[in-house]
Amino acid sequence: METKSKEGLTVKKEEDTAKWYEEICLKSELAEFSPVKGTIIIRPRGYFIWEKIQEYFNKNIIEKTNCENAYFPLFIPESFFKKESEHAKGFQPEVAWIDPKLTQPGEKLAIRPTSETIIYDSYSKWIRSYKDLPLRINQWANVVRWETETTKLLLRSREFLWQEGHCVYETEKECDKETLQYIQLYKKLCEDLLALPVLVGKKTEKEKFAGSKYTLTIEAFMPDGKALQCGTSHNLGQGFAKAFNIEFVGKDEKKHFPWQNSWGISTRLIGASVMIHSDNKGLILPPKIAKNKVVIVPIIFEKTKTEILKQAEKIKEQLKEFSVILDNREDYSPGWKFSEWELKGIPLRIEIGPKDLEKNSITIVKRNTGEKSQLKIKEIKTKIPKILNEIQNELFENAKKNLELDIIEVKNWNEFLNGIKNKKIVKTEFCNETSCENNIKEKTGASSRCIPLDSKKISGKCFSCGKPAKTKIYFARSY
Amino acid sequence: METKSKEGLTVKKEEDTAKWYEEICLKSELAEFSPVKGTIIIRPRGYFIWEKIQEYFNKNIIEKTNCENAYFPLFIPESFFKKESEHAKGFQPEVAWIDPKLTQPGEKLAIRPTSETIIYDSYSKWIRSYKDLPLRINQWANVVRWETETTKLLLRSREFLWQEGHCVYETEKECDKETLQYIQLYKKLCEDLLALPVLVGKKTEKEKFAGSKYTLTIEAFMPDGKALQCGTSHNLGQGFAKAFNIEFVGKDEKKHFPWQNSWGISTRLIGASVMIHSDNKGLILPPKIAKNKVVIVPIIFEKTKTEILKQAEKIKEQLKEFSVILDNREDYSPGWKFSEWELKGIPLRIEIGPKDLEKNSITIVKRNTGEKSQLKIKEIKTKIPKILNEIQNELFENAKKNLELDIIEVKNWNEFLNGIKNKKIVKTEFCNETSCENNIKEKTGASSRCIPLDSKKISGKCFSCGKPAKTKIYFARSY
Repeated sequence: METKSKEGLTVKKEEDTAKWYEEICLKSELAEFSPVKGTIIIRPRGYFIWEKIQEYFNKNIIEKTNCENAYFPLFIPESFFKKESEHAKGFQPEVAWIDPKLTQPGEKLAIRPTSETIIYDSYSKWIRSYKDLPLRINQWANVVRWETETTKLLLRSREFLWQEGHCVYETEKECDKETLQYIQLYKKLCEDLLALPVLVGKKTEKEKFAGSKYTLTIEAFMPDGKALQCGTSHNLGQGFAKAFNIEFVGKDEKKHFPWQNSWGISTRLIGASVMIHSDNKGLILPPKIAKNKVVIVPIIFEKTKTEILKQAEKIKEQLKEFSVILDNREDYSPGWKFSEWELKGIPLRIEIGPKDLEKNSITIVKRNTGEKSQLKIKEIKTKIPKILNEIQNELFENAKKNLELDIIEVKNWNEFLNGIKNKKIVKTEFCNETSCENNIKEKTGASSRCIPLDSKKISGKCFSCGKPAKTKIYFARSY
Repeated sequence: METKSKEGLTVKKEEDTAKWYEEICLKSELAEFSPVKGTIIIRPRGYFIWEKIQEYFNKNIIEKTNCENAYFPLFIPESFFKKESEHAKGFQPEVAWIDPKLTQPGEKLAIRPTSETIIYDSYSKWIRSYKDLPLRINQWANVVRWETETTKLLLRSREFLWQEGHCVYETEKECDKETLQYIQLYKKLCEDLLALPVLVGKKTEKEKFAGSKYTLTIEAFMPDGKALQCGTSHNLGQGFAKAFNIEFVGKDEKKHFPWQNSWGISTRLIGASVMIHSDNKGLILPPKIAKNKVVIVPIIFEKTKTEILKQAEKIKEQLKEFSVILDNREDYSPGWKFSEWELKGIPLRIEIGPKDLEKNSITIVKRNTGEKSQLKIKEIKTKIPKILNEIQNELFENAKKNLELDIIEVKNWNEFLNGIKNKKIVKTEFCNETSCENNIKEKTGASSRCIPLDSKKISGKCFSCGKPAKTKIYFARSY
């Protein structure tokens, strides 16, 4: 399977980001379009990243917060959706139904677009007492939303993989606290694992989850000037509890409705990390999510071939934990191989030729910077892990710097328009009225991304309508 | 959530195994029926077992055989099914379709009952040369089969979770070899992890996978005298390759069709292990798949309470790796707690009371045998892991002995009938004709389970039709 992506990219990142990104995914074999319209195939190189996200998540989020994994059905009765009217309305346009011939007359079955309703039906049976709370359950699942927008590999498709956490609490305070905790843990996952900087904030009323009290979000910013919602944590208040009749007997021996939240991240995170870091040579992956972290390209001449290959094998063995590829194919030139593995995003290249051998050293090349240096063979075991860490950190720091550069503060409509035109995230003061927000979206194509969590009371005017501003806010075009 | 299963089982294993099994699943909170007919909810205690299976599988099967995980769409076009006619015919009765309003006229979309067709469409694009082979891809997924038979928790439901491996080889020999290898790895997983003994063999033509050349199977035998197919590995020959036009250029520079296999295990394995090991007090789980491997029940008297609880906390800390439950609830008696944790299948109980404390020891009780003994507190850290291993081994040895006792060899129709009536696995000599097999099934309800892999040429007569026998075979009633 390695033999078919000989050609490099045909489009530049800065010229046509969407096309460039698609080529990156296809040619580095992360994902591709499926013959079923709107759906995609996640290939092993892409799925490996999802497994790393799952591993990190189960260890650092599920276990640490005393949450447990479970599995609920793919199918949801229409009647469940209708119990929470805002929720039903929000999801209606994109729900896929199964063939009515399979079900009882009058009862339609949806393929889950999200699982609040079917999970909370169970919660109403499981929860009786305050002793049953907090209840924290997560599910890893596929979900289906019958989108009409263009399919984008790993960013927008009719089926995608995600996790959805669903917690129930005795008090509003606990619920608020953990709704915030989960979005902060998402931020940490993005930073630590994917080297992906994100803005954290609260969605406006217009943009919040259908049926929630409020939604917290993490937003990444892509090189084409579009924001990408990367994860959300919804405080559901007591709305679903009332709709699904979830009640518990409190310490006061009276019945109460509990407070709930739900939170999710999806395979979209893979796309975000890929688009942020990659360049015109191809894929760049943070080492922590790259399956093969090192590739060895031996520089082969007939005279020294045996010795070089022997040394290359030794190095491969020493670096076993990094799933090293030793590219000893003889029908390709070293230069061709360099391009191949740059395209496929191997974080570190080791070259070993006769000159290196003479000096008991190797040449290493960092994929992210192209930086070339020499390393003594005896230092390999200690230095390579450090260099991989260095690459991971550089990617994050670089992306973080770019994110900061992409934010501009504006005070009025013209500055706002300019900012959006120049593909920036615009930070501004806003009246926080849905009608004003609708007007902005219609006229500029930009949508509100989030209200910073540390947003203080402010005294200025809304950049758009001129009414008293209520909050700072980020606007941007978006995926 | 721990407060609601106060009552023990109402049915005995030997009296109504099906009802007993259902109560075990429900009351130990492994799984329950969902409001969507035919589907189930896998609760955290049940899903934990699936996660252990996944963990074992990814480490010992996927990695070891150079296989990779990937993800293909939930939806499969009807036209794909029709390409391999036997396959289409085999699955047709139980395929669920999505609402035709969502798709183009003339193209129906199935919800995957298995993914050969959609995966092999991709393979036809990915495979070009012998250098691309062997190709080994696995997917963890949910599948849907619109069964009309009664739903059985974790054993038969319209949606279930599984893995499906799909490999492509240059030669028939490799394909044969690995089709066998995967069924042997399944057997090892069942034995090592689930303490579940299985018979390995080949399915008859009647029972093989629709579209395959032959099917290898592992079969467990349940306490109610029914066999349970626990995993299969299908040699698909070149049939799908021809139907999907998968071709490769060989070393001879000519085009060839490759050889393929597919293999799967599902959440049914959880049910098999639960049914084999559990008893009339409730769930028994092999320690390797029990989340909480140890429960500590302190015997509390007012005078020694502080000291006992302090010691219990210490022990809990020492045994942290076994996710110990310390049941220090004061509104329940020790006896009530014993029953509760026996019902829920905690492999080992530690009791600690004033008398134990005087002797610097604890009382331990093995869930599988009820065996009670004393252990010095200073020995806890070294001895408990050994005792848990011992329990794991005893469960396997015991189940293996039972399986051997459940097999009887018969020579004629009357012995066969008696064997089936007595809920045995009947081993016999058989003509291996589908018409004879149909007749046996119709008259006795028993189906062929598998042909032992070491089956030599034999010279006897078919127990049923009297024609020359071609093979040894196992028959039994089945799930």
